[in-house]
Order: sequence, then C-alpha cells, then structure tokens
Amino acid sequence: MSTPSRPPRDGGEATFSVIGKPFTRVDAGAKVTGQAVYTDDVVLPRTLHCKILRSPHPHARIVSIDTSAARRISGVKAVITGADLPVKFGILPVTQDERALEHEKVRYVGDPIAAVAATDEETAAAACDAIAIEYEVFEPVMSIEDALRAPKDERIQDYGGPNNIHKLVALEFGDMDGGFAKADHIREDVFFFQGNTHLPMEQHSAIATYIDGKVTLWSSTQVVHYVHRALAKVLELPMNRIRVVGAAHGGGFGGKTDPFAHEIVVSKLAMITGRPVKCTLTREDGGAYGSYGVASTFYTGVLQPITYDIPAYRFEGCRVFTNKPPCGPKRGHGTPQPRFALELHLEKIAHDLGLDPAEMKRKNFVKPMTRTVNWLRVTSCGLEECAQKVLQASGYRDRKRVPGRGMGFAISSYLSGAGTAIYWNDMPHSEVQIKVDRGGVTAYCGAMDIGQGSDSVLAAIVAEELGLQPKDVRLVTADSDTTPIDLGSYSSRVTFMAGNAALEAARKMRAMLVEAVEADGRKYEDVKFEEASVLAEAKFGTLVSAGSYTPPNIAGPYKGSGVGPSPAYSYSACVVDLDADARTGLVHINKVWIAHDVGRAINPLLVEGQVEGSVYMGLGEALMEEQEFRKGLHKWPSMLEYKSPTFLDVPEMETFIVETDDPEGPYGAKEAGQGPLLPVIPAVNAAVYDALGVWIDETPVTPEKIVEALRRKEKGEPARVGPRRFPDIPYPACIKVEPPPKDLSAPPAAI
Amino acid sequence: MSTPSRPPRDGGEATFSVIGKPFTRVDAGAKVTGQAVYTDDVVLPRTLHCKILRSPHPHARIVSIDTSAARRISGVKAVITGADLPVKFGILPVTQDERALEHEKVRYVGDPIAAVAATDEETAAAACDAIAIEYEVFEPVMSIEDALRAPKDERIQDYGGPNNIHKLVALEFGDMDGGFAKADHIREDVFFFQGNTHLPMEQHSAIATYIDGKVTLWSSTQVVHYVHRALAKVLELPMNRIRVVGAAHGGGFGGKTDPFAHEIVVSKLAMITGRPVKCTLTREDGGAYGSYGVASTFYTGVLQPITYDIPAYRFEGCRVFTNKPPCGPKRGHGTPQPRFALELHLEKIAHDLGLDPAEMKRKNFVKPMTRTVNWLRVTSCGLEECAQKVLQASGYRDRKRVPGRGMGFAISSYLSGAGTAIYWNDMPHSEVQIKVDRGGVTAYCGAMDIGQGSDSVLAAIVAEELGLQPKDVRLVTADSDTTPIDLGSYSSRVTFMAGNAALEAARKMRAMLVEAVEADGRKYEDVKFEEASVLAEAKFGTLVSAGSYTPPNIAGPYKGSGVGPSPAYSYSACVVDLDADARTGLVHINKVWIAHDVGRAINPLLVEGQVEGSVYMGLGEALMEEQEFRKGLHKWPSMLEYKSPTFLDVPEMETFIVETDDPEGPYGAKEAGQGPLLPVIPAVNAAVYDALGVWIDETPVTPEKIVEALRRKEKGEPARVGPRRFPDIPYPACIKVEPPPKDLSAPPAAI
Repeated sequence: MSTPSRPPRDGGEATFSVIGKPFTRVDAGAKVTGQAVYTDDVVLPRTLHCKILRSPHPHARIVSIDTSAARRISGVKAVITGADLPVKFGILPVTQDERALEHEKVRYVGDPIAAVAATDEETAAAACDAIAIEYEVFEPVMSIEDALRAPKDERIQDYGGPNNIHKLVALEFGDMDGGFAKADHIREDVFFFQGNTHLPMEQHSAIATYIDGKVTLWSSTQVVHYVHRALAKVLELPMNRIRVVGAAHGGGFGGKTDPFAHEIVVSKLAMITGRPVKCTLTREDGGAYGSYGVASTFYTGVLQPITYDIPAYRFEGCRVFTNKPPCGPKRGHGTPQPRFALELHLEKIAHDLGLDPAEMKRKNFVKPMTRTVNWLRVTSCGLEECAQKVLQASGYRDRKRVPGRGMGFAISSYLSGAGTAIYWNDMPHSEVQIKVDRGGVTAYCGAMDIGQGSDSVLAAIVAEELGLQPKDVRLVTADSDTTPIDLGSYSSRVTFMAGNAALEAARKMRAMLVEAVEADGRKYEDVKFEEASVLAEAKFGTLVSAGSYTPPNIAGPYKGSGVGPSPAYSYSACVVDLDADARTGLVHINKVWIAHDVGRAINPLLVEGQVEGSVYMGLGEALMEEQEFRKGLHKWPSMLEYKSPTFLDVPEMETFIVETDDPEGPYGAKEAGQGPLLPVIPAVNAAVYDALGVWIDETPVTPEKIVEALRRKEKGEPARVGPRRFPDIPYPACIKVEPPPKDLSAPPAAI
Repeated sequence: MSTPSRPPRDGGEATFSVIGKPFTRVDAGAKVTGQAVYTDDVVLPRTLHCKILRSPHPHARIVSIDTSAARRISGVKAVITGADLPVKFGILPVTQDERALEHEKVRYVGDPIAAVAATDEETAAAACDAIAIEYEVFEPVMSIEDALRAPKDERIQDYGGPNNIHKLVALEFGDMDGGFAKADHIREDVFFFQGNTHLPMEQHSAIATYIDGKVTLWSSTQVVHYVHRALAKVLELPMNRIRVVGAAHGGGFGGKTDPFAHEIVVSKLAMITGRPVKCTLTREDGGAYGSYGVASTFYTGVLQPITYDIPAYRFEGCRVFTNKPPCGPKRGHGTPQPRFALELHLEKIAHDLGLDPAEMKRKNFVKPMTRTVNWLRVTSCGLEECAQKVLQASGYRDRKRVPGRGMGFAISSYLSGAGTAIYWNDMPHSEVQIKVDRGGVTAYCGAMDIGQGSDSVLAAIVAEELGLQPKDVRLVTADSDTTPIDLGSYSSRVTFMAGNAALEAARKMRAMLVEAVEADGRKYEDVKFEEASVLAEAKFGTLVSAGSYTPPNIAGPYKGSGVGPSPAYSYSACVVDLDADARTGLVHINKVWIAHDVGRAINPLLVEGQVEGSVYMGLGEALMEEQEFRKGLHKWPSMLEYKSPTFLDVPEMETFIVETDDPEGPYGAKEAGQGPLLPVIPAVNAAVYDALGVWIDETPVTPEKIVEALRRKEKGEPARVGPRRFPDIPYPACIKVEPPPKDLSAPPAAI
C-alpha cells in the first residue's frame, strides 16, 4: 500500500495494473520454505491417531464383526464400525450410497469397515489387525462386460437399472436419422480409455477436534462446502456445529472432490474421545462409491458438440457398477475419454476421405456467440486462433513425412465452472466478502487453493479494483466458519465464479472509498490507500462489501440451470511431434505446441503453469498410466509400481495464451486448469498413426500395442489395436429435443 | 439452530429469549478441558526461543554493548540490540518514549537492552549472559519526593516539565473560591495508595512468524489493534504486512494494554531469522515507560465529580517519572486511588459533623439524566438503588457497635468505554461484521476476550436479534487480518461498544432475513433459521452486514470527544463487615455486600463473575498488595513473595445486580468489569475506623499500621497512619471552565 498515487480503473484493458501481469503467487514463500501448514502438519496436543480397517474382498457380505480384542489393546481409545455411522452419504443427491464404515456389504478391495483411534499409528494398526470379520464372499464384477451380464450372485447396489446398470442416458438433438440418410460417408469406431489415478503430491489427510460441542475438521479436500454438508448429514449435527478448514493443499486433480470416509471417521472419533484425531492415508488406500458417476455420464454426453458445428447429435450413455475402487473425477472430468474418441474418429474420417485432418476440423469449428445443437451457449471461442498458433509454430502443414516420425493435431474445449450446483438450489455458487479498515484489506472467500493459485487470482482481482498490489490483500479462504460459501475447486470454476464474486465485492468497496475521498474534495487516484480507507471508515463505519456469482438463468432444456453445463467454455489446440520406433514400439515425444483460449490471463504465470501441468498429465495418460486388477486387487497399488512421467520424461513445450475476452468471465477470463489436458492425448495417437500408419484406439499407447498393431498390419489385418463393441445395452428410446436458434442474440422460444 | 419457531423481536424486555439469561460461556468447554490454545501453547516447527537481556541498574547510561561472544555460541541464530529497533513507540501519541531495546540509557531495573533468538531457551539465556555491557550509573529516582527535587544526575526523560515532572494538570469548574468562602466546614486530607500488580493467571507471551513478507504475531495482549499500530511503526512495515492475533487469554486486568518490547523483539527476530520466534516472560520481568501515565492523570481528575452532585470542582494533578518499572494501568484505571481518597475524606467529614456517613453521601448522590459540573453526562444512575440494597441487606444502619467489629460503606462509579480513542480520530471505536450463509452465522469482531467473557456477550447479542442460541453463533475475534477494528479490552468498553456495533450489524442482518421470508409469504418467526437463511441467500446473494460504534459527538470542553471521558457510567455501592484485632492488628473480612448498576445484565452469570472478581481484587489491594523497592529492585519480585489473597482469604459475598436500562448501551447495558472494585477499598478502611476508631489513610491496611495507629491514639496523637503532604509542586494557574446546564435535556451553549 505504499503506492502514493494509483492509476484510475475504468475497466479497460489499457489501464490494468495487476491483471495480465506475471505476479509471483501470494503463497510462494510459505510453500518453498516449507512453512505452509498442510493437514498432516497440524499438530495438536493429545492427538490420537486413526487407522481404518478395509475389506480384502472386492465383493462380499459382512456376516459379523468382532472388535472386542482390539478394544482390549493398551493405547486404544475408541473402535467404531458402521453401526456407529449408519447414515449414508454421497457427493450427488441422487447417489447417497456410501457409508463411512460399511457393516452390511463391501463392494471393492479397500471398502472401509472399522476405524481405531489410538495413542499412536502402530497401536491403531495393531488394533485393526485384531478385529475379526466373517465374510460371505461373492463373485466380483471387474469389467463393464461383467457388469452388463446378469449377476451370478447379488447386484452390487440395490438401486439403478437392471443387472448392475447405474444410469442410462439417451438423448437426441436435431434430425439424426435424416442426417445419416443424407450422409456421403458413415463411420463407426470403438475406443477405450484406461483408468488412471490423480497422483497429487500430498496424500489424503484429515484431523478433527471436538470442543464445546463443535467439530472442527482440517482436511486435504477440494470441496470444503460439500464435506461440511456430508459431515452434518452423517454425524447428525447442524452445520453450525461443524467447521471445515482447508489446510495448505498438495494437489487434488479431482481426487479430493468427494467427502471421504476418513474425514467422517476422524470427526466421529473426536466426538467419542474428546481428543483430536488424525488420519493420513497411505497411497494404497481406496476411495468411494457412486461418487460423481452420474455427472460423469452427463458430461460425457453433453459436452461433445461444443467444438464442432454439427446439425444433429445423439448420445447414448451407460454407467455400470463394478467392484473396482471408485476414485472420483479426474482433471478434465467427463471429457478426456469422449474427446479422445471424437478427435481420433474425425482423424480417421479425414483419412477415409483423403482430407488433411487439421483442415477438415478447422472448417467445422464452432463460432463465437452461437448456440450448439444441444443448447450450449458459446460466448467467446478462440479455437481458430489456437489452431493457427500451434499449426504454424509446429510447421505441421509442411512437416516432412519420415517413417517413424509423426505429428498429431487435436483440439478441445472445457467448461468454466459447472452451470449447476451439485445440489440444485437458487443460491450463489461463489461468494466473497471484503473488509477494509485502517489496518488494510481482507478478502474472504470459501474457495480452496489446491495449488492452482486461486488465492493469487483472488488477491489480483481485489488489488486491481482497489489500486493495490496483490500482496497488499490479506486472504481468508476455505474455512466454513470464517468464509462465505464457495462450492469448491472442481469443474474449473474458481477463477470464473469466485473471480466474478470478488469483482462485484471489490467494485462495491471501491465505490465507497471513492465516495469518501470525493466528499473530501479530492480524487481517489491522488490519495494514498491508507488515507482513503480512514476517510471511508469515518464516513461509513465498518467497511464491508459483498459479491456473489450465480450462473445466468436462461430458458433452455437444462434442469437446475438454464445456462446448461457451463456459462462459458475454454478452447485449446495442440500439436505433438514424436518419434515411434517400429522395431521396439518405443515412443519419444519431441515437442508439444499448445495454445489455450483462457479468455483473459489474470496472471499469465499461473496460466502457463496450468497449461504445462495439463500437458504433463495428458502425456502420462496417453503413454503409460494404467489401472489393471487381479482378483479385485489393483496390480500396481503404490507409487513404486504405478508408472507416470518423471521430470526426465517431460518434453519441450511451447505455450500460447489466447485471449478472447469472454463476456461472462471476470475481466473476460475463462478456465485454464483442465482444458489444456484434453487435446494432448488424441494428438499423441494421431501422431503415432502419422509416424507408423497404425491406430492405437485406446490408452495408454504402449510399445507392446504398437508392435502388435504393426504385426497385424504386416499380416494384412486392420492396422489397429483397440476394443471391440460392448454387448448390447438396453437403452430406452431417445428423448428428442429441438435445437435452439443458432445465433446467440436470437432468443429461443420457451420449451 | 434447531428451534422450529422463535419469538418475535420487538426490542422489548418482555420478549428477550437470550439477553438476561445465565448462559454458560461459549468457550467454557475449551477452557476447562485445557484445549484452549494460549500463546505459549502455539507450537510451530523450527521455533526459536527468545530471551531478553535487561538492565540491572535503575538509572544508567549505556556506554557500550558487546554481543560478539554471544553470537559465537552454538545454537544462537540472532542477537539484536537497540540499534536494530531505533524507532520509539508508546501507547499514547504524546508519550512515544520507549524503545523495544534501549541502547542509550536505561531507566529501571528490567529495562530491555538486547535480545537473543536461539534453538532453546537455555542457550538464549546463556547468550544473554555472554553479552558485555558497560554502564555509567546514575542516582536513581525511587519516589515522588525524589522526582520533584532537582535531579542530582540527569533527568530520567528529556521531555516533560522541570525536574522529572511528566505532566501537570490544573482545572477548575465552577466557583471554587466562592464555595470555600461560603463553607461551614473545610477539611484537607492526604492519602497514599500503594502500587500493586495485575497478577493474571497467564504471564506475557508472544510468538511471531515471517512468511511471504508478512509478520504474524500471536500475543497475550488486551489491545490487538494498538500492538498492530506499534509494530507497524517500529518495524517500519505497513499495517497490511502485519497480522496480530489474540490467542486464548489468561487475564490482563490492564497489565497487557501496552505494546511491549517482547512483542516487537520476537517479530524483528522472526524477520531476521525467517523462523518462528517465541518469548514467554517470567514473572520477574518488567514493563514499559510513559505508558498510560497522562491518561491516568486525566482520569484521576476528571472522574471524581461523577458520584456526588457538587457545584464547583478544582483539580491539580502531577505525574512524575521515577526509576521504577512502569506497569500500565490496572483494573479501575485512574480511579481506585482518588475514589479511595474521596470516600474516606467524606467519611471523615461526616464524623467531623456528627452525621451518618452513608446518609450524608446518599443526600448528595448525582441524579440520572443530568450533567456534572465538569460536563460529564450522567444518563442512567442506579446509585440510590445500589446503596439501599447493600445498606438493607447488611443491616448497616442497625449494626451493633462492638469494639473490634466494624462496617464500612462506600460507593463508586466507572466509565463504560473511553469516549476518546487513544489516538484521536473520527473512525468507529468498535466494528462488527456478520455473515450468514446456508452453513450458519459468523460474527467477526476485533474484541479480545481476556477472560471477561466478551465472546459470550457478542454471541448473545447476535443470537438474541436473529432468534438463535449463543452457541449457534460462530465467532471470529481478535485477529487483525480477519476481524474489523475494535480498540481493545480496556476502559470497560467491550460490552458497551462492541455490543452496540454487534446490535447494529445483527439488526441489519435480521432485516434481510425477514424481508426474504416475508417475500415468500410467511413470517420470520414461523420459519426455521436454516430455511430463512437459504431464502435470503438466494434473494440477496452473499449475506454480510456491518455495524459500528462511535461515541456521540456532543458540544463540550473535551477535545477529541465531545462526550467526555465516557458515554455512560456504571455505579456501585458496597458494605464491608470485618473484625479488627486491637492486639495483633489482624483484619478478618466477615462478609461483603455489593450492588452494581450494570444498566442491563446481558448475561447475569458473567456480571456476577466480574463483580465477585472485582471484590476479590479490591480486598487484595486493600489488605496486602504492596510494591516496595530496595536499590531500584522490587523487594518481592515473584509470586512466591508477593502477597495476594488465596482462595481461603475470600469472604462470603452477596451480589445485587441493579438494572437501569441505560439509553446509550446495547439493550441498556453498561460496564461490569472494573467499577465494582472501587468501593471495596475505602469501605475496608471505613470499617477499620468503625471497629477501632483509627484511620489508615493509605493502602494496604496491614496489622503493623493498625497497631501503630492504636499506639498513637493511646499516646493522644492523631489516631492515624498515613502520608504527609508532598513538597510544593509548581502548578500553573487553573484553566477555568464554566459548568454546563445541569439538566441533560437542556442543550448547552457552544463553548
């Protein structure tokens, strides 16, 4: 706040003094010096340590649980089972199918059954070993094909469709049959996308206290608010007797967007023992149940028409239960898989027709300020600029066609915040309050900085409006007691939604400061901030302002949110250059060019970090990450065996930030945290085809698959490795929806 | 928040559901189970421990400081001296005379000179021992008489009046000379009030960190905001780079109302080392400099006319510097001493005139809704009811006159919050913000709960307005980052001022909730709070309200505050019954009756606790507490030697809460934390006279003094032990001020 005079803010780009500048993160010092307090660093006197006993069977009925021997071990302060926490929960209101501890039936290897609080971790582990459980073991369901067959033993869940079907979706927009009848070329492909895991630096951890009738939980979570709601439900306490605090965060990538058993268990154990209880999971521990499955199915279908201008669209989706450990959504939730399929499908069509894939795609890009056939609102769209950037920089069009070397091009899009809250309601999705007093500025926001830098973005927006520097803004975030609601760090929503809320609150605060200074006969820009705040505090009393963000409520077919899945969409394009060895099947990535339409880069340093991190993660999924199970157990259950890229595997990258000034975003900003991952994966497979003329129609692209595809090609079989069609699924008749007017400025008729 | 329907709030007493009820403190569980985190409980990784080297001389010039040997000790991370912290500070803007570490001159035994941060306390202490300091020793000034003499060596401070005079005040309201001329009886007395100490359960402690360019200090302070200001000044950092947090608090009683050297020193050492630095003082450590001295002098004079209706008043006051350790204000700041003198003076006059002292005093009580001769505004006044309660309950009027047994009666008054901030400004003295969202209610306030229960009062007021219970209100308090300004826990200001701010904020919040519910076609009282908050959050977005309190700005002679020293005054009356042994001089308190006009008891449990704690502390000052010095060093420097009452010394008490519904206070409330101490002390001395016919005109009333007074009585000398007149003091001519109209409803002419 030492700036003697500050530039005026008229909202125009020309006068930005913070937005668009590469500021260091506000928490950089704490993070790099090791002073940031992560959940496992929270040290409280007399803390008990919790271990959770988990199922060794993928599918079994629990006949009996005997905890008496465990309770007799010295140092054990409490043992709980499902009978202590009978209320079911789940992230989505429609799938409340989990228990913190299961006492009737287990559904995957790792399903939690009992929890122990003891004076140290070793004693807690010994007590878990002393718990005797009798099981009736069932045949596990370890694949989609298994799930769709009539079950040999009982169904995994007692709700959903026939067999183990969880959810069926069948939707049609526009005239699909007419479209096929008129088509010159029809092609069907089947793709498979391997499971993979989030691999954040910090594992799951939670510590709870119970004092004066109130539970306080620190947790490594992405969704402080949803954890708060789930705790209230399962602990059967009002929300105001529970405080959830997000500690410093070592990354989530979607893997911390569910409420988890260990968060509930430590809270309950703290209530029973009256002492702090901590549980830090190892990497081997498992996850949840129905989780985000229904939402994943929705996204998989609804987000496909957002990149290409297509006149008709039909989607059939099926989600099944299996006895694998659920793991929540991951970066790009609901889109890496279909985007992989769509981009490769178009690639193949282009080859069928003898067209350049990149040029064929470009001809069909959606345009800004239009509606898609399934009613998505495209506001800004930098697809064309993104494509041009990477195609030109990489020399894709003029690349030399050398066997064993190839380039692949792909594009994608992602949402900037979910248009609908996970539980439908009319309340804001993000809320910010700002306090100014003679001591400075504080911004309060429920958003959880999971490493993506949302705290720095919040500080930058408030600083920009008030004429300060980001480090002048004190932040209070991710604490259900002290901060207003933000729905969480998922769906790439924080910069867009909390950013809009911060902008509103900051502009209201600025207006008060300006009024007080002008009442003193001066201009805000000519007065030191400290003096302006003293004048305003004397004039108005306590200086508090509030802002909030609720997605626009617009007529359309989407329940719970007129605007559809998101109020705005980011766009990306990518070119991958690689060498693929026909003899060994080994792939070496030479370089990745990536362009991302972020609308406006609030902080270009952070945007670049997100884009490059996405490329890194996308390459891991494309080339090596894999979840395989043997007798219900993960084949590579620890970081020692599970393959993901190391520092040495990261290729050269060239990143282009494209700014399209979205009309809905704060200063025009859209998301950057998930979208850039999406085009990387199909671009790798396209580049492998470019290099060797074989299609790998699944992830990961391993050397064995390349060698096998080349072998098939030599034998005159289809030069492809990939899945076959699944068994027939009993889809209902499609719900048919009329497309809206294409031009966004033309209002649609009510439907 | 489980109440399905709640009574309407029309502001009337009949409908109170929280106010006036004896609720358990909101922090009771944390305190009694030992889970409250006091400053010394704050555990941070890699914390360094700080020891401060202090002067062994009461008055000396520092010739040289050599820290080289200390720096060479293994484990020592930093050594600082006054050269590292040259900027002077002080609680009052007019007496910025302290340094965190002194490098030019020391002024009392304990003046801090150097500080060490080391890996443990023992190493830090050893390093302090290794610091070599050369002094030029001066003659110390150890009494008021010494101070008023021309100094033999140099003056203690280089500012103030002649010799060692700090401040001279001479004021006259009304016609004093005319009054004396008309008087039937004129009497002069001289009294002495011993120094004593605050004896909180928790000693001073502070821990600081320096991360990302920002200092965070946890401290056991009563004045978060003033510590914040002092740190900014001395560390030469903007306030927004400093966060001051009040941890759980083990009592202050005025002894923690200054910014202290150790708070500044740990902050500076954290900045230098980049590690957390903690300093917890032992009981032997000393305090500050000019401190509140000028304010004490002001209060001593200005508050005398608040209990009796007197037509003219003259005050001459002198504050001198000595070489004793300063200790800040203590409970009843500026009034135990003059009230002791005034009550005993009137007692003696009554005896001179053959009147009953209690009846003579009652005849002269001030009346409600009047102005005093020195322009103090008496709004509510329960003096008469307080006096009647204790006189009747004790049977004072009909007491049996038995040698060796006596009763004493005294009354007093105290301010409910200082009318002026310590630094004069137009900003609010207290600010509260309230957030409501679907998760509950949070109230934010800078007020520091030092054990008096201000957190519980804040919760009660917000709960009352919103129709909840106190435990439904989450509190964020005493943290300069997260809470708006409150000036601190001193001058009995928090219930009155922060309470008024909370009331304003809560009423604004209630209005939003009511509007949202009524827009839904229902009545607020019929809707669960959770539902009301969801409706309002959907209607208004982020729900934040703010309230503040600034004392009324009224024409009058008081600079910086038209309203004078306080916007409202509490009143108390007390009767003490005791046995006094003529042979041994031993005094045994049989019972104390005390009545306190608190305006309105927000929580009667807390008011009773404050009143009884005041009686306890008053009895300690009356009977045993004493500060004597030998060669500049305190004779009883630890709790082992210093005498204060134990649990067994506490007599039976009967407490009467008198409610007068003050028009300025929240729900009519006034202060309760300091006023009830004041009448206890003169009531003890009056009761000793009643029992034995001797006057002890000073504190404490020790057995030796009683025996000595009886010995003098037997010898026919005046039956008195007490001080003589001080040497003549060079007072200036009095500033004469015309008295205002007596009736509060008549506006005074501008002056």
